Amino acid sequence: MPANKTALVISAHAADFVWRCGGAIALHAALGYDVTVLCLSFGERGESAKLWKQEGMTLDRVKDARRAEANRAAEKLGVHDLVCLDLGDYPLELTREDKNSVVEVIRKVQPRFMLSHSKYDPYNTDHMYATQVALECRTIAQAWGHNPGEKVLGAPQLYLFEPHQTEQMCWKPDTFLDITPVWDKKRAAIECMEGQEHLWEYYTRVAINRANHFKRIRWPVRWTGLQIRRRLRVDLPAYRR
Amino acid sequence: MPANKTALVISAHAADFVWRCGGAIALHAALGYDVTVLCLSFGERGESAKLWKQEGMTLDRVKDARRAEANRAAEKLGVHDLVCLDLGDYPLELTREDKNSVVEVIRKVQPRFMLSHSKYDPYNTDHMYATQVALECRTIAQAWGHNPGEKVLGAPQLYLFEPHQTEQMCWKPDTFLDITPVWDKKRAAIECMEGQEHLWEYYTRVAINRANHFKRIRWPVRWTGLQIRRRLRVDLPAYRR
Amino acid sequence: MPANKTALVISAHAADFVWRCGGAIALHAALGYDVTVLCLSFGERGESAKLWKQEGMTLDRVKDARRAEANRAAEKLGVHDLVCLDLGDYPLELTREDKNSVVEVIRKVQPRFMLSHSKYDPYNTDHMYATQVALECRTIAQAWGHNPGEKVLGAPQLYLFEPHQTEQMCWKPDTFLDITPVWDKKRAAIECMEGQEHLWEYYTRVAINRANHFKRIRWPVRWTGLQIRRRLRVDLPAYRR
Amino acid sequence: MPANKTALVISAHAADFVWRCGGAIALHAALGYDVTVLCLSFGERGESAKLWKQEGMTLDRVKDARRAEANRAAEKLGVHDLVCLDLGDYPLELTREDKNSVVEVIRKVQPRFMLSHSKYDPYNTDHMYATQVALECRTIAQAWGHNPGEKVLGAPQLYLFEPHQTEQMCWKPDTFLDITPVWDKKRAAIECMEGQEHLWEYYTRVAINRANHFKRIRWPVRWTGLQIRRRLRVDLPAYRR
Amino acid sequence: MPANKTALVISAHAADFVWRCGGAIALHAALGYDVTVLCLSFGERGESAKLWKQEGMTLDRVKDARRAEANRAAEKLGVHDLVCLDLGDYPLELTREDKNSVVEVIRKVQPRFMLSHSKYDPYNTDHMYATQVALECRTIAQAWGHNPGEKVLGAPQLYLFEPHQTEQMCWKPDTFLDITPVWDKKRAAIECMEGQEHLWEYYTRVAINRANHFKRIRWPVRWTGLQIRRRLRVDLPAYRR
Amino acid sequence: MPANKTALVISAHAADFVWRCGGAIALHAALGYDVTVLCLSFGERGESAKLWKQEGMTLDRVKDARRAEANRAAEKLGVHDLVCLDLGDYPLELTREDKNSVVEVIRKVQPRFMLSHSKYDPYNTDHMYATQVALECRTIAQAWGHNPGEKVLGAPQLYLFEPHQTEQMCWKPDTFLDITPVWDKKRAAIECMEGQEHLWEYYTRVAINRANHFKRIRWPVRWTGLQIRRRLRVDLPAYRR
Repeated sequence: MPANKTALVISAHAADFVWRCGGAIALHAALGYDVTVLCLSFGERGESAKLWKQEGMTLDRVKDARRAEANRAAEKLGVHDLVCLDLGDYPLELTREDKNSVVEVIRKVQPRFMLSHSKYDPYNTDHMYATQVALECRTIAQAWGHNPGEKVLGAPQLYLFEPHQTEQMCWKPDTFLDITPVWDKKRAAIECMEGQEHLWEYYTRVAINRANHFKRIRWPVRWTGLQIRRRLRVDLPAYRR
Repeated sequence: MPANKTALVISAHAADFVWRCGGAIALHAALGYDVTVLCLSFGERGESAKLWKQEGMTLDRVKDARRAEANRAAEKLGVHDLVCLDLGDYPLELTREDKNSVVEVIRKVQPRFMLSHSKYDPYNTDHMYATQVALECRTIAQAWGHNPGEKVLGAPQLYLFEPHQTEQMCWKPDTFLDITPVWDKKRAAIECMEGQEHLWEYYTRVAINRANHFKRIRWPVRWTGLQIRRRLRVDLPAYRR
Repeated sequence: MPANKTALVISAHAADFVWRCGGAIALHAALGYDVTVLCLSFGERGESAKLWKQEGMTLDRVKDARRAEANRAAEKLGVHDLVCLDLGDYPLELTREDKNSVVEVIRKVQPRFMLSHSKYDPYNTDHMYATQVALECRTIAQAWGHNPGEKVLGAPQLYLFEPHQTEQMCWKPDTFLDITPVWDKKRAAIECMEGQEHLWEYYTRVAINRANHFKRIRWPVRWTGLQIRRRLRVDLPAYRR
Repeated sequence: MPANKTALVISAHAADFVWRCGGAIALHAALGYDVTVLCLSFGERGESAKLWKQEGMTLDRVKDARRAEANRAAEKLGVHDLVCLDLGDYPLELTREDKNSVVEVIRKVQPRFMLSHSKYDPYNTDHMYATQVALECRTIAQAWGHNPGEKVLGAPQLYLFEPHQTEQMCWKPDTFLDITPVWDKKRAAIECMEGQEHLWEYYTRVAINRANHFKRIRWPVRWTGLQIRRRLRVDLPAYRR
Repeated sequence: MPANKTALVISAHAADFVWRCGGAIALHAALGYDVTVLCLSFGERGESAKLWKQEGMTLDRVKDARRAEANRAAEKLGVHDLVCLDLGDYPLELTREDKNSVVEVIRKVQPRFMLSHSKYDPYNTDHMYATQVALECRTIAQAWGHNPGEKVLGAPQLYLFEPHQTEQMCWKPDTFLDITPVWDKKRAAIECMEGQEHLWEYYTRVAINRANHFKRIRWPVRWTGLQIRRRLRVDLPAYRR
Repeated sequence: MPANKTALVISAHAADFVWRCGGAIALHAALGYDVTVLCLSFGERGESAKLWKQEGMTLDRVKDARRAEANRAAEKLGVHDLVCLDLGDYPLELTREDKNSVVEVIRKVQPRFMLSHSKYDPYNTDHMYATQVALECRTIAQAWGHNPGEKVLGAPQLYLFEPHQTEQMCWKPDTFLDITPVWDKKRAAIECMEGQEHLWEYYTRVAINRANHFKRIRWPVRWTGLQIRRRLRVDLPAYRR
């Protein structure tokens, strides 16, 4: 394999990568991957309720606050590069030019695998739109005739985050990742999301319960953290087993 | 519960709300709900064949006729407010600005529940587009940063109309509504659709057969109309049982 | 409605009714329902690992212990009648005669609704077999020619418990039940399951997270416990909201 | 093609073949097919409520009445051979020997195609059991080592009847059969079912509405015949259009 | 039926119609159909890797080469009319005006049936976009108010090509077409695709293995080529059986 | 990991393990796994047509021939232990005692993972029955109360073979195994199946085309056989890439 292993996360809003694949990022960073996180928006309009309740809030101030939180969280997780395209949210909508920017990032990173949202999400249409964009831009990045001369993309697998309500979103896990060794980093990143403190315990419970699922379907031997690794589709911390 | 209970129907074309949820509207009106119907278009190009067969017909004349029919039907059903956005049909396409108009209506109504078309409809792409718009605009209406200062939307459930061919459209009923007490109103509204007389008996048969389904899955006691009510997803009149 | 409202839970093993619908039972008991619980087996072979690890354990002693726990839990929940058919587990297998016993219970109870396991469960084949039995016996109980002269069954809906891993078991919630007012009873019943203490916190987390789901999809008003009730398919306690 | 074209219907109860594929039978009979109908039971216990309400009714009298009705209906439809195995209903259960009898019929008929119930039916478990039997016996009939020397079965397609509630039974039509020319025969056969008069209009409405479906998906040429027509997997193959 | 039978293939890129339904085209041409092929793009950017590896290649030169190959292949297959709209690929995106051009072709052809890509294709988003366009334009072409005075479209069935990886693309065959008599024409057309020689054997193996599938599900008599025909959804050559 | 790594294949008929997971077996054998193959039957009645066409054939002679072929193939693949339970086929049916025999094998092997047929197979009901048995016996083997004192089973994953027609059998690959290094062994085992020579090329084509699928979804680097391995669900030989 090549020396520089890379991965790319495409996150609709600035905080999504933390809740949904923070452990996957931290674990791959620990394994020597350069993980790039691409935030299409800051979630400034739709996912910043607490900020908007403050007196005299403006869109720019919200964006600044969200960017700062995302930066701190990225640092905790060992993110190699955090790219914020600031394309607007609720609704997230990309022009042809915006998509070209996404393609440019994909080609530059040349990811070994990609991560994004679930295919369907009736409660948050930005999420499913981001996945549609990820698929479309992956296709474009593979075209020899798109900016001829650039290095075209191979065929990286796209893994889908565990969404908020799996059953409603037609999402079924088929890849688990034991993030026990990096759980503290994920929790630290989660705690950077000061505006959404009510979700800290929620996502910790999700992690613990999914670990219970994981234990039920695998060989009951001791896993030694990073050595025996699996490819991931979801962030499934086996928290303090 | 608050005094003014509200509901919102998002109808791709002017007549859809009559066939697909006329009973649901009439029943909720009788229960004290203010039901707003939002017609995205008049169905002037694609659902007015009979009018177009007349000599010298124009788009404006078709729209006028369809608007008049919709008004009469809405009156029969006890609709609180009929909003026609006149966005064009076949294809129905909304700009960002059009979507903002839809969001405005949603926020103004603050519906306790919403109704729209099935998620998939290969025979009528306007229908599934309307549902996509309903989901997207519901998401936007929930954003604190969209027109900050306005009252944001809560989390109303979106119920999906019974579509024309349920099996092809991946639609499965999970909520039934006994509209027996208001059936006469629905039939009266149906008969306002003079241009589509061939459908009157069709939708009456649908109502009767779906009531047969309903009877098979419930406790066999006498239902006293409005008292024992269920939440609806479909218009399932138990016609004269 | 008739004076004596009734419901029937069909549980593959003695403890299943506690984890999976304890709140539903307690809530309906509080609403005046006579809830009968039918345990097809004690889970004596497959769900009593802790007991089997004790020196000199026998099948009868395991059954006695499981029966005692089930009795205590049933009392905490306000179960009207606990029927244990002792048909054996791992595998659960019913003869024609055994099925007749189940039919007898169903006809005696004349339930307004029934509850049982998910339709599919690759990790626990007894669970899906119990559901198959529930469907088959419901069908038999409706037959006028089965023990002619007995009162035949109407058409009670069968609700399916939330299974252990919803996604793997093709289970999707469509009915929620707010069990906040009876949560203490469910937790007390859970704590009767001394042999499975490792699951107490697990199912508490499930209840809390599912409540979070529930809050996301409903009208954001205060719920006054029993007054505003919904029909249930799953046990979804909105734990101390 | 061979001179004697054949088809085989496997019906759980004596009346099912009438409601669910009476048109298909009559049409193929008219096309020169020898259609054999195999009734696994008479529906004597579970589908004869009206008879059981009569004073002094016995199982044998019910069976006789049902057999007589089935014979009359088969005659109206032009059935070549009506085979009643009398295996009991509610529940329908076949021993290995019973299955061998079914295999014997299949091999004797050597059907060009087969018809049976939908794959899933939670409201009537006999129906889905009959389909399971049809699949299993088709497999056995193809085995060279089952009664070596007999002529083995080829690979006839199994078509599935339109079930009572298509959506709940995961049934999706992909073959339609225009039975207009034989509608009178189907209606006449339906009217032989004196014990279930309440279903005569129900199934007529089903036929009319499904024809409406058919008209929406086909080439708009003039239809000759009853106006109400359609193509099969249900009572639907416009063979030799 | 009318004298001039017609069919329309909507192909995202210039070569798709060859691999995916070349046999269907050749067979229907032999049956007297006028088959029109509409290529939305040439696949000039995304499906012409071999050309782009040549020194000094330009977009126009790629298009010319692809157009020439498509012409030759169309000739081999007996295509009545090859329409190339040159709308660009990777991504394929149609404006309202572009869609009107597609509608114009559909109305002009008045196809008895249509063919396009699978509904879902995560590896090639242009493919699923083409199908979405086909559905939408079919809907528009049926509207009496779209260019009033023109002949509106009836209700032609849309058949979906067998995609590259059926399981990932949620595609399930329900219509087979025996293209044995025209296999040589399909192979000749395939060999016109000089830039994709590595796919020649791949698609030949697909054809042979699908024919094996076909043999397993049908009556085992000799098929006499064109006489005994079925309606097609996929190109399923029974290669030299 | 423990020294003796083990795996268990549950094959409905004697030849199934060769076509469907011969490469998986050979590869894991090469990796040091002890792979046990459990044949529930010899396929003596239903999958030995060629033998039955011989004069004076008997069930015992067919079984002997099939057993001999299975032995030779197992040897080519490096199978650790071939267990033939001789339970009969077409139909395959297990008594409670037969299931106990399967449980005994499972417990003795203590497999790290299991392989069996697809969950659904309408063309071969023995196949889906074998999978049902595998799930049920896995459940029993995990029960502390089944033969108390024996070592209970952990939670090995059950992988499902690629079935004959993936789309009809609702099978979707999510695990690939590069069997290039052992392809020669698989082909040699295939050629032991003298009675089914017509399938040799068929399964070779399947292997090559599935490898093409594999190449499309992975990182385009050179794979060095056993070093970079994946867990398997299907036998997907990347034949001589």
